[in-house]
Amino acid sequence: MTSPADRTPARPGRRHLLRAGTLGAGALGVGAAGVGLGRSLGAPSAPADSAEEASTHWAPYGGPTVPFHGVHQAGIETPAPASATLLALDLREDVDRDGVLRMLRLLTDDAARLTRGEPALADTEPELSSEPASLTITAGFGPGLMSRAERPAPDWLAPLPAFGIDELEEQWSGGDLLLQVAADDPLTVSHAARMLLKDARAFTTPRWGQTGFRRSPGVVRPGSTLRNLFGQLDGTANPAPGSEHFAKVVWIEDGPFAGGTSMVVRRIRMDLDGWDEADRGARDAATGTRQDDGAPLSGGDESTPPDFEKVSANGFPVIGEFSHMRRARGVDDGEHQEIYRRPYNYEHAPAPGSGLLSEAGQVFVSFQADPLTQFLPIQRRLDELDLLNQWTTPIGSAVFAIPPGCAEGEFLGQSVLE
Amino acid sequence: MTSPADRTPARPGRRHLLRAGTLGAGALGVGAAGVGLGRSLGAPSAPADSAEEASTHWAPYGGPTVPFHGVHQAGIETPAPASATLLALDLREDVDRDGVLRMLRLLTDDAARLTRGEPALADTEPELSSEPASLTITAGFGPGLMSRAERPAPDWLAPLPAFGIDELEEQWSGGDLLLQVAADDPLTVSHAARMLLKDARAFTTPRWGQTGFRRSPGVVRPGSTLRNLFGQLDGTANPAPGSEHFAKVVWIEDGPFAGGTSMVVRRIRMDLDGWDEADRGARDAATGTRQDDGAPLSGGDESTPPDFEKVSANGFPVIGEFSHMRRARGVDDGEHQEIYRRPYNYEHAPAPGSGLLSEAGQVFVSFQADPLTQFLPIQRRLDELDLLNQWTTPIGSAVFAIPPGCAEGEFLGQSVLE
Ligand code: HEM
Ligand code: HEM
Repeated sequence: MTSPADRTPARPGRRHLLRAGTLGAGALGVGAAGVGLGRSLGAPSAPADSAEEASTHWAPYGGPTVPFHGVHQAGIETPAPASATLLALDLREDVDRDGVLRMLRLLTDDAARLTRGEPALADTEPELSSEPASLTITAGFGPGLMSRAERPAPDWLAPLPAFGIDELEEQWSGGDLLLQVAADDPLTVSHAARMLLKDARAFTTPRWGQTGFRRSPGVVRPGSTLRNLFGQLDGTANPAPGSEHFAKVVWIEDGPFAGGTSMVVRRIRMDLDGWDEADRGARDAATGTRQDDGAPLSGGDESTPPDFEKVSANGFPVIGEFSHMRRARGVDDGEHQEIYRRPYNYEHAPAPGSGLLSEAGQVFVSFQADPLTQFLPIQRRLDELDLLNQWTTPIGSAVFAIPPGCAEGEFLGQSVLE
Repeated sequence: MTSPADRTPARPGRRHLLRAGTLGAGALGVGAAGVGLGRSLGAPSAPADSAEEASTHWAPYGGPTVPFHGVHQAGIETPAPASATLLALDLREDVDRDGVLRMLRLLTDDAARLTRGEPALADTEPELSSEPASLTITAGFGPGLMSRAERPAPDWLAPLPAFGIDELEEQWSGGDLLLQVAADDPLTVSHAARMLLKDARAFTTPRWGQTGFRRSPGVVRPGSTLRNLFGQLDGTANPAPGSEHFAKVVWIEDGPFAGGTSMVVRRIRMDLDGWDEADRGARDAATGTRQDDGAPLSGGDESTPPDFEKVSANGFPVIGEFSHMRRARGVDDGEHQEIYRRPYNYEHAPAPGSGLLSEAGQVFVSFQADPLTQFLPIQRRLDELDLLNQWTTPIGSAVFAIPPGCAEGEFLGQSVLE
């Protein structure tokens, strides 16, 4: 339901239509060209209109909309846009099962509106809702929400075990309710997140919020792999959205959460200053891939399958045994778990006096049908041994159960909570 | 030199050319359509290329470049892009005049490269430099830098006087050197800021950093006025970039800083929760403009000049005497100073336990030839009386002298420091 092919151009808000007549056919071109669709659009974009025309002609800005309703929630298989805020909220003590359902109804209603480019019900800045820019809103449930709603949680829904590499900070971990708000525009994200927080305010207190970024629309080739703050192509080995393989890796098949998935959020600090000291050889050896073009060290280009058997003149594997890719894939354990990674870069200015150039890292997000049999073994292997650990430190951790999508008239999580 | 009309499409980095042949003529269309040029481009955009084509055909992504060299520095008259980081640095104690000049040469050299879409000299992630996305880098000097360079500072170069509305926090104020790094892509900004910080590292310690956002390319009509986090159109009364009027308001005419300007940076917290309680009437009365379309309360549309004489049936001025616009313009004092405002929205997730929905506000930036005769009287009037003060609080403040632009082979500030 929410595969890339389903993206439709923005339906302009009622206000826009009232103010400027109907939307011309030229709309599709510019709207669609503005976002990172990983496929040919076929048609050339409409010309940008001039400032002179602007007062009489409503230009097709605002960006595409991504359907909110569907078998799966949006924001998972849909291309990750430029900007995202993840919010984790804790239920207030006095909120019971009925309160949880009431809150989810409110949130669903406003999420549906906002993703269509319409104001939230109690929107005091409707002007900030008219550019959906591929907005998606994805909800996830922590163990606390499931028990408050008096429904059994999936058995895997629990904090991850502690890892040796972890330096978790309470402020980045856990949460009863997760809202992933993502769009191709940071003001759209900011406003939508605020509207949802307002809906949830009577029922929850904010626990943590993490904002991250990828590339702005049009800046890199649609479908390009993300570059992280180390400069690496990060996401190459992901299952392809829209494929059967993706479905197998990500979507839960049976039970109340069928059509849903699990979401692991790890806040991972990246030591950019330390990374600066490492030369290309050390960097590439740490992942087993080349920083410049993402090709495996065994050769080819980004899309070439790695050859883990290949050895150098002196008999060592070209893709080293301690490299992140080899460890993550489980090559030497005869295993191969898969997950779908959809991370965001984060960076903020250094705290005064920290001596650092910046606080930076990755809001690591992965989706998988079962975190215990997919994510956990990978993370265990990386915890044991992974050259990349020299420069990365998990400082936050949370797991959420993502209910399936809902149909119009339903609320998010209805099938699992009723 | 750096007017909007000067924007040229991205010159692809050498690496790209080597990898994929020459850049076709179709480049201009998509590149230019990706940014907010406030004028007609004339030509339709090239079609987006498909993922299949991508390996054999280098697509014209990366965004336009803005010329770095010129009579004026870029990043002032050029359209404000989607993302910006402002960095304030303090000179280390042992850095003398020679050190300052050496540092500025280094910074200028790398700023010129990065804005062309080329890696910095010691760039360890050259892959993150190949999308300039209209990158501009603007340098400003605080009093500390001028005295270390043993040159007289303009007499206005000093902290602003304290205002009654101020709740300044040391962590957001002052600084010897200001770097404004702005582009249509947050990863481009992040990387460029980091490269400049590395250059400056031996000479300075970071004092503060502020990151802000406007709209992503393509999301709103090019040339649209920014919406701030209150939902207001903010920037309507600005002098038009490229006009003679702009030049008169912004550029210094005589002396060593001729062709330069002054930059005021105020970090202004905006009480979004309080703003939520105010109804449309109270909101519009606070500014004297309508939140929805930015028209003055006296009527018309955003571009209609306000009629400050107009009174309501009961004899009160329609644009109230305490409204932000009327006070800012000095209508009742028979004055009319002007400045050029180029602010960014900021927002981050609420601190745990703060009870707030978010920490939000505006990185207020204004450019004017003389802060004492232009900015100061406006700020004094607003400090005295301005309905908007109920919801806004300055928490940081700094003033910098912006030297004129430099020619190729020169360094930023050369004409004022040599
Ligand atoms: C900041 C932290 C991390 C960085 C910078 C990073 C970087 C990378 C890079 C550059 C690659 C190779 C290209 C690709 O396929 O994406 C990769 C692959 C991979 N990473 Fe990470 N990674 C990080 C954390 C993690 C974590 C926490 C996990 C899961 C526990 C993980 C799981 C994987 C997997 C499964 C692959 C694909 C391996 C394969 O089958 O080829 N990564 N990572
Ligand atoms: C967060 C703080 C602020 C907000 C939300 C804000 C908002 C606005 C709005 C909505 C307008 C009317 C539309 C326009 O012309 O832009 C305006 C006008 C203006 N503001 Fe502000 N403003 C803020 C701070 C300041 C500050 C600190 C100054 C200077 C000290 C300033 C100076 C002006 C000026 C000169 C005008 C144009 C008045 C005219 O000639 O019509 N503003 N502002």
